[in-house]
Amino acid sequence: MIVTVTPNPAIDLTFSVARFDRGETHRVPAGIARAGGKGLNVARVLHSEGHPVQAVATAGGPTGDELAADLRSLKLPHRLVTVVAPTRRSIALHDEERDETSIFNELGVNHAPDEWRALTTAATRALPDCRCLVGSGSLPPGAPVGFHADLVTAARAAGVPSVVDTSGPALLEAARAGATVLKPNRDELRDATGEADPVAGALALVVLGAEWVVVTLGAEGMLAVCAGDPVTVLRACLPEPLRGNATGAGDAAVAATAVAIAEGETDPARVLRAATAWSAAAVLMPLAGEISPSHPELAKRVIVEAVR
Amino acid sequence: MIVTVTPNPAIDLTFSVARFDRGETHRVPAGIARAGGKGLNVARVLHSEGHPVQAVATAGGPTGDELAADLRSLKLPHRLVTVVAPTRRSIALHDEERDETSIFNELGVNHAPDEWRALTTAATRALPDCRCLVGSGSLPPGAPVGFHADLVTAARAAGVPSVVDTSGPALLEAARAGATVLKPNRDELRDATGEADPVAGALALVVLGAEWVVVTLGAEGMLAVCAGDPVTVLRACLPEPLRGNATGAGDAAVAATAVAIAEGETDPARVLRAATAWSAAAVLMPLAGEISPSHPELAKRVIVEAVR
Repeated sequence: MIVTVTPNPAIDLTFSVARFDRGETHRVPAGIARAGGKGLNVARVLHSEGHPVQAVATAGGPTGDELAADLRSLKLPHRLVTVVAPTRRSIALHDEERDETSIFNELGVNHAPDEWRALTTAATRALPDCRCLVGSGSLPPGAPVGFHADLVTAARAAGVPSVVDTSGPALLEAARAGATVLKPNRDELRDATGEADPVAGALALVVLGAEWVVVTLGAEGMLAVCAGDPVTVLRACLPEPLRGNATGAGDAAVAATAVAIAEGETDPARVLRAATAWSAAAVLMPLAGEISPSHPELAKRVIVEAVR
Repeated sequence: MIVTVTPNPAIDLTFSVARFDRGETHRVPAGIARAGGKGLNVARVLHSEGHPVQAVATAGGPTGDELAADLRSLKLPHRLVTVVAPTRRSIALHDEERDETSIFNELGVNHAPDEWRALTTAATRALPDCRCLVGSGSLPPGAPVGFHADLVTAARAAGVPSVVDTSGPALLEAARAGATVLKPNRDELRDATGEADPVAGALALVVLGAEWVVVTLGAEGMLAVCAGDPVTVLRACLPEPLRGNATGAGDAAVAATAVAIAEGETDPARVLRAATAWSAAAVLMPLAGEISPSHPELAKRVIVEAVR
């Protein structure tokens, strides 16, 4: 089983508008409301691909009730820690004429110390049956920056590998704790490490203690830097970029990575191929947390090259 | 007591963003979620101004639960008819740099025939204690266009005056039923009557059977056309337009009109003065359903002129 931990989940509201005119009033059909946040998107992809998963997350207020109801309707195994602050919202507005999406993510409200402890306890209790622990997503403002790092430490103590997708100081802490894989995107990596070059940024995280760093580069594919002597640096991409909705593409990459790690895969080229294919398969789908069934064909077309 | 009937209420979600960049991802502070829809905004203004009110509306799904919780927290007397379809959402995005708001209103889902009947029953049961019935807001697609007209007819049979703020064929039907006051804005009036000139459009509704038609003209103020021999046509505005948030200004005008009608006011100039002042006082407030306490001073400054 793969366990995903989402400290700051969201209700994702997606609306389509024929054409977006700034400052105007638009009448729109009913939006789609779903449980979201990076870790829940990862869990959704894993569940729909038939991989056993347990989603651990917080839930509060009426939006927390909506989140719980959505997970129940998906039959996605989950354990929700009740918190006082309402679960945040994320709004996506799709402009049909321009085929362009504007996104507004609420930052989320910090949890109380005992709520953070309850979340960590819920995650660590799942470790005995867990083959890979995924800690994914932002933290609300004021949150303990060591939250993901503490998960990594608990997983290591239980002999469980970990994949962490977060940003800022929390990313550096997860590296120091010895995460198996870190998955920042280019901007998150630059912001956290101060390195403009993704290879240099990923190396900095490896130096801190991460085993592998997989960097998502949008339409340019992905990069992996793996600890060792010598360090392995790989790049992967499709022969041509795909058009579509990039929201959730990084989460699909995390899901593919977690499956590979859970299955004991040790060849970073194979992990990167799967991650690139699942990520591309997510771009082909309109909503985050879904991937196109064409991912096995996409995987065959992925080009993986050693950079050094 | 004034009774407001809202057939298609909404959860209004208001978000502030430092600067809106189309197609980009924005991180925003927690939005504000409140019970909305025109009739509930009218009820909120009346309640905050100390006028006895009962809000009758539909509520469905998790958004309906949020709506009910908000009305309870306001201590606003209400009677909600439970419906199967979730209460719609309305999203307002305020761009702080440009001081400009973009609005996305879900159309709403039609109610089942027995749900419509339950809503009409809830409204008519309140008539014995009612001094003015307000029917306000859009109807979901596919709704019976005679809904507001049936309320007007029931109110007339009980000797209760009515104020209706709606659009399209429902506006024409409410006129035919003999509404005491209709309150379209300029666009709604043109769309419903086909008349480009607001005086001509308002006269068309009076000819159909409405007693008074109050037309809100945005920054240009208001117009009233009143049945009689001769017909009375009045215009009202402030000496200079106010800057602010026009959302809910029409609802404040309806609230002021309902108070005047409930108190037996028969002078349209006095009604128009109060409606213009409350509407302007709503423009000064950031959220719909609130008016500035400065409305008595604004009322003194309103200029009311006979057009013919």
